[in-house]
Amino acid sequence: MGRVTTRRPVLRIAAGRRGQRPDTLTVEEPLEIRAGGRPLSVTMRTPGHDFDLAAGFLVSEGVVAKPGDVAAIAYCAGATVEGSNTYNVLDVRLGEGVELPEFSLDRNVYTTSSCGVCGKASLEAVRTVARWSVREDDARLDVGVLTALPDRLRAAQRVFDRTGGLHAAGLFTVDGELLCLREDVGRHNAVDKVVGWALREGMLPLRSTVLLVSGRASFELAQKAVMAGVPILAAVSAPSSLAVDLADEEGLTVVGFLRGTSMNVYSRADRLVLPVP
Amino acid sequence: MGRVTTRRPVLRIAAGRRGQRPDTLTVEEPLEIRAGGRPLSVTMRTPGHDFDLAAGFLVSEGVVAKPGDVAAIAYCAGATVEGSNTYNVLDVRLGEGVELPEFSLDRNVYTTSSCGVCGKASLEAVRTVARWSVREDDARLDVGVLTALPDRLRAAQRVFDRTGGLHAAGLFTVDGELLCLREDVGRHNAVDKVVGWALREGMLPLRSTVLLVSGRASFELAQKAVMAGVPILAAVSAPSSLAVDLADEEGLTVVGFLRGTSMNVYSRADRLVLPVP
Repeated sequence: MGRVTTRRPVLRIAAGRRGQRPDTLTVEEPLEIRAGGRPLSVTMRTPGHDFDLAAGFLVSEGVVAKPGDVAAIAYCAGATVEGSNTYNVLDVRLGEGVELPEFSLDRNVYTTSSCGVCGKASLEAVRTVARWSVREDDARLDVGVLTALPDRLRAAQRVFDRTGGLHAAGLFTVDGELLCLREDVGRHNAVDKVVGWALREGMLPLRSTVLLVSGRASFELAQKAVMAGVPILAAVSAPSSLAVDLADEEGLTVVGFLRGTSMNVYSRADRLVLPVP
Repeated sequence: MGRVTTRRPVLRIAAGRRGQRPDTLTVEEPLEIRAGGRPLSVTMRTPGHDFDLAAGFLVSEGVVAKPGDVAAIAYCAGATVEGSNTYNVLDVRLGEGVELPEFSLDRNVYTTSSCGVCGKASLEAVRTVARWSVREDDARLDVGVLTALPDRLRAAQRVFDRTGGLHAAGLFTVDGELLCLREDVGRHNAVDKVVGWALREGMLPLRSTVLLVSGRASFELAQKAVMAGVPILAAVSAPSSLAVDLADEEGLTVVGFLRGTSMNVYSRADRLVLPVP
C-alpha cells in the first residue's frame, strides 16, 4: 500500500554552515478514480485513505449521497507494464440506479451551456446538484470552542510535524469533538477524504458539524462543505471571493483567519455564540 | 476587466469582542482556456494576466515554446446569456505548424497506456515533452543572494499585504534581480503567469534563473520549472517526494524551507555557492 512519507538525503544550510542529513518528505503520487471502469479524474494525492478520497470526490460531484450509492471500491490490478499493482488506480462500482453525469473537462468547475463560464454559473451548478441545504441547519457554535480547534487539529496532525508538507482537514462536532482528521498534499483531497469517510459511515448530511482546513478556503472547499451538508467552514487563512459568494447563496457559515482568539466571519455569523464577558 | 480584490463586510471577533468592518478578499473566478476554439482547461484563478496564464499553461503542457507558437490570444465575446463579456473565456490561436496533443482528463497528470498511472509515468511524460534540458545549465547562485529572495518577493507583493489570500511566484536572475512577479489564488496559476510572460518576452528557456514560490513545491511546480528551462526552484515550504524525484531525473535544483538564513537543498546542490566564512 502507499506510504505517506519517505526519507531522502538533504543538504541543510543554516547560518553559513552546511551539513548532510536525512529529511522526511510527504509522498505525492497520482490516483486515477474510475467508476464502472470509466476514468473520471486523476489527482495528485498522498497515498492513504484512497477509498475515502474516491467516495468523497463522488459526493462533491453530486454523484453519491448515501452508503448504498457506492456498492464497492477496489484497486485495479496490474497497473504497470510488469503487471505489478501501483495502488494508484481504483474503480468504484456504483449502487443500483446511481448514474454518472457528464463530467466536464475540469472536475472542479461546473459550466452550463447557457451561461458560459462565470462565477454565477459555478454557484448555480452547486445549487442544481446539491442533495440538501445547509441554510436551515440551526447549529450553534461557541466562539471559545471554535478558537480551540486549530490547536486540536495540529495536535492530531502527527504527520505534519514530521514533514511540514501536508494540508489538513478536520471534522468536529459543535462541542469541539474531533470526528475525523485527514491530511494530503492537496487541500481538496484532504477534504474529500473526510467527506468520503462520513459517507461510508452513513453520516451524510453532516448536520451541526464544523469543517476546519489548515490553509485557505477556496470556492472548491466551500462547495465540498455544502455538498456534504456541513453548515460551518473554518479556515486558518483567507477565503476567496467566490467561496464567500457561495456561502451567502447557500447559507454556509464561513470563518477565516482563525488564529489565537481572533477570527473573521464572512457569512451566517448567527451560528456563532459569543459568551457575555 | 477582472478585479484582483474585492471588498466585503466582515464580522471581526478578537479577544471576546466583536465589530463590523470591511475586509478585502482575493477574487476567484473560473477561466476557460481554448485553443482554436477547442476547450482545453478550466481553472479557478484570480483575474489579471490571463493571456500570460494561457500562454504559460501551454508551455507547461509542451504545446508552445517560442513567441511565434502563439499567433494571438483573445477573450471570447458574449460569454453570458445576456451577451455580456465575463472575461472568463479566452481562445489561443496557435502559430502555423503547432499541434495540440491529446489532452488527458486531468491536465496535471500525464498517463501512458503502457504504464498505467504511477509516479514513474509522470516523470517519463515530462522527459518526453520537454523541449530542452536544465541538466547542463551551469548557473551558480550565492547562498546569500538566495536567502534574500523571500523578503524581496514579499516586498513586491503589494496585493498579498491586503488580503493574505494569494500565492506568489517570482522569477529572479542568479544575481537576485526580480524579473517577474505574479500572484494568484492557485499556486500553479501564479507560475503559469510567470512562464507565459517569459514566453511572450521571448525569454524561454529561462537559463540561469531562480523560480521562487511562496508555498510548497509540488510535482506540478517542478514540472513547470523544467518545461520553462528554469534550473533552480526554491520554495518557502516543503517539496513533495515526486517533485524531488523529477528534480533528480531532470537535473533541477530544488530548495525547500527557505527561511531566514537557512534552507534544505534536495537536489543539484552544486549550483549553490556558500561563501567561505
